Amino acid sequence: MISKYKSLKEECLESNLKLNELGLVLYTFGNVSAVDRNNAVFAIKPSGVPYEKLTASDIVVVDFDNVVVEGKLKPSSDTKTHSLLYKQWKEIGGISHSHAKFSCAWAQSLMDIPIFGTTHADHLTTDIPCTSPMKDELIKGNYEHNTAIQILETFEEKKISYKEVEMVLVGNHGSFTWGLDAQKSVYNNRVLEEIAELAFMTLNLNPNAMRLKDSLIQKHYDRKHGVNSYYGQ
Amino acid sequence: MISKYKSLKEECLESNLKLNELGLVLYTFGNVSAVDRNNAVFAIKPSGVPYEKLTASDIVVVDFDNVVVEGKLKPSSDTKTHSLLYKQWKEIGGISHSHAKFSCAWAQSLMDIPIFGTTHADHLTTDIPCTSPMKDELIKGNYEHNTAIQILETFEEKKISYKEVEMVLVGNHGSFTWGLDAQKSVYNNRVLEEIAELAFMTLNLNPNAMRLKDSLIQKHYDRKHGVNSYYGQ
Amino acid sequence: MISKYKSLKEECLESNLKLNELGLVLYTFGNVSAVDRNNAVFAIKPSGVPYEKLTASDIVVVDFDNVVVEGKLKPSSDTKTHSLLYKQWKEIGGISHSHAKFSCAWAQSLMDIPIFGTTHADHLTTDIPCTSPMKDELIKGNYEHNTAIQILETFEEKKISYKEVEMVLVGNHGSFTWGLDAQKSVYNNRVLEEIAELAFMTLNLNPNAMRLKDSLIQKHYDRKHGVNSYYGQ
Amino acid sequence: MISKYKSLKEECLESNLKLNELGLVLYTFGNVSAVDRNNAVFAIKPSGVPYEKLTASDIVVVDFDNVVVEGKLKPSSDTKTHSLLYKQWKEIGGISHSHAKFSCAWAQSLMDIPIFGTTHADHLTTDIPCTSPMKDELIKGNYEHNTAIQILETFEEKKISYKEVEMVLVGNHGSFTWGLDAQKSVYNNRVLEEIAELAFMTLNLNPNAMRLKDSLIQKHYDRKHGVNSYYGQ
Repeated sequence: MISKYKSLKEECLESNLKLNELGLVLYTFGNVSAVDRNNAVFAIKPSGVPYEKLTASDIVVVDFDNVVVEGKLKPSSDTKTHSLLYKQWKEIGGISHSHAKFSCAWAQSLMDIPIFGTTHADHLTTDIPCTSPMKDELIKGNYEHNTAIQILETFEEKKISYKEVEMVLVGNHGSFTWGLDAQKSVYNNRVLEEIAELAFMTLNLNPNAMRLKDSLIQKHYDRKHGVNSYYGQ
Repeated sequence: MISKYKSLKEECLESNLKLNELGLVLYTFGNVSAVDRNNAVFAIKPSGVPYEKLTASDIVVVDFDNVVVEGKLKPSSDTKTHSLLYKQWKEIGGISHSHAKFSCAWAQSLMDIPIFGTTHADHLTTDIPCTSPMKDELIKGNYEHNTAIQILETFEEKKISYKEVEMVLVGNHGSFTWGLDAQKSVYNNRVLEEIAELAFMTLNLNPNAMRLKDSLIQKHYDRKHGVNSYYGQ
Repeated sequence: MISKYKSLKEECLESNLKLNELGLVLYTFGNVSAVDRNNAVFAIKPSGVPYEKLTASDIVVVDFDNVVVEGKLKPSSDTKTHSLLYKQWKEIGGISHSHAKFSCAWAQSLMDIPIFGTTHADHLTTDIPCTSPMKDELIKGNYEHNTAIQILETFEEKKISYKEVEMVLVGNHGSFTWGLDAQKSVYNNRVLEEIAELAFMTLNLNPNAMRLKDSLIQKHYDRKHGVNSYYGQ
Repeated sequence: MISKYKSLKEECLESNLKLNELGLVLYTFGNVSAVDRNNAVFAIKPSGVPYEKLTASDIVVVDFDNVVVEGKLKPSSDTKTHSLLYKQWKEIGGISHSHAKFSCAWAQSLMDIPIFGTTHADHLTTDIPCTSPMKDELIKGNYEHNTAIQILETFEEKKISYKEVEMVLVGNHGSFTWGLDAQKSVYNNRVLEEIAELAFMTLNLNPNAMRLKDSLIQKHYDRKHGVNSYYGQ
């Protein structure tokens, strides 16, 4: 009998493989999920399964309360972070998590990534936020759920929208990125890694490097995302 | 019916693919154009089309006033920068633009790249110029056209010739390089990235590293480009 | 006649090739061994043989007193380090040694690698120890044997267990890693290199970067290795 | 008619291709030569010919006075540096020159590479020397010949032997390495690049990193090169 989630699982598989192929993953240190809003479930990578052996039938389907709906394997240990983000952010279709090197170095430094150039401004108009270290009681509690809580609070405090800023650094850990679908979340993970590397090198060259001026930020963002955008076809 | 620009488009395609193959491009963050002086047009990459899918028939032919002469797709969003450079600099045949990492880091640092070694002097005798941040009214105006204006003004102010210095950093953005044909502009983009990386590492090792002495600059440049050059066949 | 160590030698070969394939080795600067506890011997890479030419029949079988039991070639010059670790640490099944770049840079800096993030805490709860420079009389004596002595003393002094910390930097030299089998020791060598790179970049970004808080160290370690671990299948 | 230098040219070709394959060369920025002591000639890469197109018949045979003995192309612009080294150092069989990144960064910094670890000591017991900037009159004179003069003087002043130290940085330029044959000179060029990278990262981590202690330098060098060497087969 063919699973009703066949195409969802294939989409999830393909995006996970892409994350790995782009060099963002060492061993099993990353995962991608894809949501099916009509059925209120999402497909996610199983925990600890090597990318080289991953097949569509390994992909686990989970509902927003983290109950496995389909699949024989245990879902990613980060599943509760994914589910809460899907619950709260109604318009995202996919989420990627990685420990990619430069993103991870910024996360370990507990620093937001300053917006230094147009590569950054082509994608978002703010610094890339890094969450603060989690409080001890939250770590000891429902840790992965609380990771999502921290991401959500960071976006509230900074008054930024998940529709415009599709990426975050989780302090001391790594990155979460999202988008309209899983493929876009992988794209954003790769873009974040590039921005993180460029900013790393910029600070190395010039520790007093200045943030991009507002008019240029707006110009580049609008070229791609504004009402009168003229980038792309 | 065969296009009269068939070979121009193929040259443009090939150079765009080369830019990508050399590792200078992430996703669609770069473009190359090739000019046809007799017909006063140039061929350029279409905006936002992935390099993996790019074909010769996708390439757009544009005149120096940015009017599309042939092609169904929209030309690169940087087209107006290319067209003005072609208009002003009569002897260049191709232009490349990239966000290659080390070039971009220097551009984001708003620093000229000092001439530290013979790899640099083999190609040009001056520091590699970086344009200043653009004024707000220019950004809000005809931005891509004004980017070329800034490049031209930088070369005037510094009294350097586009025939001898075939590369520039656009502040906060990335690089533009050019040459007698598109292929040479791609070569220059790769060379700029190498010089940028070497200079980055040199400053990391020795923050007080000194510029190359004039006699050595001249010697290496003349070996390759002087009246009595003896490099190559 | 088929060797009784055939499968041991094949395991050893495969792990050596993996170490090389993972980019941890330049030329012959590394080696892996695999132990056979029942026969009190281990198989190890022959000294100075290029990885490209290595075959299972080249692998040397040695007992814990460094006597060659099988094989025509000389065993790795680091053999005495391996043998003493096998003797003292009864529950390890394989050992890897490399000069991988970031591990080596930390070793040359004579610095422990601070625990800055969860990638580190997913594998161990302490800083990664670096042994002190060896005393002159030990260097001039049984050098490779004494290298193991130094590793053992470092673990004693720091009161850490080889079962929980499966990696060490040998000061000025490179890394030794181990695990339940040879394959796991190679995995640990690759993980050490990743942790070393992340920590290198973290200190570059933020020279005052702080160690991970204890609760988060414990949480991540327990996710993978605790009584109630829930990572993996 | 078959050239009497057929095998010399093939050896030279193979070593040039290897230098490129090892990632030490961008475009044509490097060259390797191989000597034939009996005929007092050496084979060298032709100037400016891309590695991708290089064939054995392109290789140029030159005598120690830089007269072309066989070949239709112009020899490398660095030929006079090679010839003088062959003349003065009777026991070398091959020379490699590259602008490999980390070697070049140290050369541009005009700094000797300190001996920080055993990877370095496995190959030589001293810091890797960097020549001082050349005097103006020497640059304007017989530049490539004078480059060899500077290398020779550096070895005299520092009282080091070309048989023990098979590598040098030419200030502001790049590296020259040599050995008993061309293949060994390529090996040394790759090893120099690795040592240069490790030392670069070591200084980044610890600006006060200390040179390796003498006893350890001697131990590692003797393991590979001493009377009682026990590395390799």
